Amino acid sequence: MTARRWCTTGAATRPPSRRCRRERTRHARPARAGPGRPGPAVPGARTADTFTDEPVTDAQVAAIHDLIRHGPTAYNGQPLRVLLLRSAAARTRLLPYLSSSNRAKTAAAPLVAVLAADVDFHERLPELYPHRPRARDWLTDRVARAEQARFSATLQIGYLLVGVRAAGLAAGPMAGFDAAGVTREFFPDGRHEALLLMNVGHPGPDAWRERLPRLNTEEVVWTL
Amino acid sequence: MTARRWCTTGAATRPPSRRCRRERTRHARPARAGPGRPGPAVPGARTADTFTDEPVTDAQVAAIHDLIRHGPTAYNGQPLRVLLLRSAAARTRLLPYLSSSNRAKTAAAPLVAVLAADVDFHERLPELYPHRPRARDWLTDRVARAEQARFSATLQIGYLLVGVRAAGLAAGPMAGFDAAGVTREFFPDGRHEALLLMNVGHPGPDAWRERLPRLNTEEVVWTL
Repeated sequence: MTARRWCTTGAATRPPSRRCRRERTRHARPARAGPGRPGPAVPGARTADTFTDEPVTDAQVAAIHDLIRHGPTAYNGQPLRVLLLRSAAARTRLLPYLSSSNRAKTAAAPLVAVLAADVDFHERLPELYPHRPRARDWLTDRVARAEQARFSATLQIGYLLVGVRAAGLAAGPMAGFDAAGVTREFFPDGRHEALLLMNVGHPGPDAWRERLPRLNTEEVVWTL
Repeated sequence: MTARRWCTTGAATRPPSRRCRRERTRHARPARAGPGRPGPAVPGARTADTFTDEPVTDAQVAAIHDLIRHGPTAYNGQPLRVLLLRSAAARTRLLPYLSSSNRAKTAAAPLVAVLAADVDFHERLPELYPHRPRARDWLTDRVARAEQARFSATLQIGYLLVGVRAAGLAAGPMAGFDAAGVTREFFPDGRHEALLLMNVGHPGPDAWRERLPRLNTEEVVWTL
């Protein structure tokens, strides 16, 4: 996710490998989702590094949210908040907090989302978890609640990465940034914590890195 | 996710609502995924509380892992580990750590998975993130590394919930358990942390709770 671009051209010091060219071709046109023609069921097979100029509309964002809004969270708390940086001014405020390798592509992306957890999500529980009217009172400890908020919001980010892709768009999640700095800059209210940044758009030229190795099932699944 | 069963019958003190019955019907037969016929693109619209006796095979588990293995993680670290509890002895060891409302359904589920983070995932980075040979050395601090492991493993749990569903199965994620106790019981090596439990199977009678309210897009997506 924080990898530098791996399949490069132009100023690259070596030509793209055959595998690299093959992968590019295979992934150049992700399938579009549509009625009766759902997108890939799983997320982020590739992290996009470049995008076309085609914008990502508010309607597309709402459609993605609609796809993922029923994903489960603890207490049905739904703590994920998504701050879309559309204005040039907002984008400029973000860039200093990014690792240097993430700045140019983020400045150029059609849409940048700051994905954050609402630590005070419990205030909505009487409405979201109505069959347990006391649930809000179980979460009075802020430290424990912040951990819950981060956990459920991170699950929701997993759903979101799926949703972006299912909507026919490409996502470029970035963990390489100063999260505390972004939290202070964009959430001065003190109730939100930035967790991840994500560029979103239609994949551009040389968008895809060479695929990195994945662990095999027998390395990650054990049985007792 | 930790909600008690909401649409009930039998010993329930009130009959299921009309909405409850309607929802049950609509969700009683999740679409099966298959070649050219992918399952729903998004996860966990419903959390299953009961399952049929039909087993979940190792081949199904491997197929689910294959669906989700390319999901992005920081440093491509893939810290999620899945411990399947199949034997009666293993199941018996788990039950005392569950909240009382989760015990009976977990005892009866065809498959129970303990979803955990491998805090020492960095040991594999030379192989998983080969273009940054020093990445392992950036993660020598255990506390910071554990936070990274939990974050990426939680994203992967989000993908997993999608994958279970895309494979035509139902998932019952449970956060209501003693995570430190489960970690001690099943991961005495000290390098893993249990994050979530998940029952998996084919949905049984009265498997679905009444749908809880979800936040609207304008409540969770803001623009700058």
